[in-house]
Amino acid sequence: MRYYEDFVPGETATSQGSYVVTEAEIREVGERWDPQPFHVDPLAAARSAFGGLVASSVHLFAIRVALGSGSTEEPTAAVSALGFDKLRLHAPVRPGDELRVRATTIDRRVSSSRPGLGVVRSRSELVNQRDEVVFSDESAFLVERRTPTTG
Amino acid sequence: MRYYEDFVPGETATSQGSYVVTEAEIREVGERWDPQPFHVDPLAAARSAFGGLVASSVHLFAIRVALGSGSTEEPTAAVSALGFDKLRLHAPVRPGDELRVRATTIDRRVSSSRPGLGVVRSRSELVNQRDEVVFSDESAFLVERRTPTTG
Repeated sequence: MRYYEDFVPGETATSQGSYVVTEAEIREVGERWDPQPFHVDPLAAARSAFGGLVASSVHLFAIRVALGSGSTEEPTAAVSALGFDKLRLHAPVRPGDELRVRATTIDRRVSSSRPGLGVVRSRSELVNQRDEVVFSDESAFLVERRTPTTG
Repeated sequence: MRYYEDFVPGETATSQGSYVVTEAEIREVGERWDPQPFHVDPLAAARSAFGGLVASSVHLFAIRVALGSGSTEEPTAAVSALGFDKLRLHAPVRPGDELRVRATTIDRRVSSSRPGLGVVRSRSELVNQRDEVVFSDESAFLVERRTPTTG
């Protein structure tokens, strides 16, 4: 279990696991939550600005969260997400792309109202098989402290 | 179809459709992408800070996008999402909650490099059946202009 103390500002961790994005999942997530033609219809997508099917924002955010807190990694003692900023789509994600997450701790502080908890802020990047950053965000999480009685 | 010209700064639109959040879907989305105990395990969730199962950030963002561009509403002539900022979780979303989206256009501008397109920035809020804001974000989208040849 990763606790507050394990998030050291400036340190970067890359997920061991990767996530292969399939055409079937791009279309399924698109149909369910974001039915733009370039997420669900191969022919319309080919005529769009993307030139083919691309993963939706919903799909990329879901993959980013899955790789950041998923079962293939040590889980975080998270109490709650507080928010996400600066979600950016840097490059299209297409069928067959293999994504990893690279997360850097920006800063951390102990909660003033709840000293057993701390707030950790991180920058996360999804990178593809060519090491191109395709998606990034900054997140803040409330995380349990391992040693709440010490400063 | 909603074009660039249909997004008037200061105007607010509320989705006609609503989205009822079920326990089954909270757990399914949690298992798939965000397997924290308070999203997937009713007993562990009851002992968590939330006191019961709550929807994940991934789930809320997906619902927000679905209500904002979904098939129950007039679709937007969107070319691409550019990014999302200030995603905030204001209050827990629990099984049985019924959500709508309320979107306000912040500003818009014609693309300088591609005059047939414009950039629209909006603030979106998910509100529940008690009219409480449970989630909000700000988004920027590249949208087709209806009248690209005029100024």
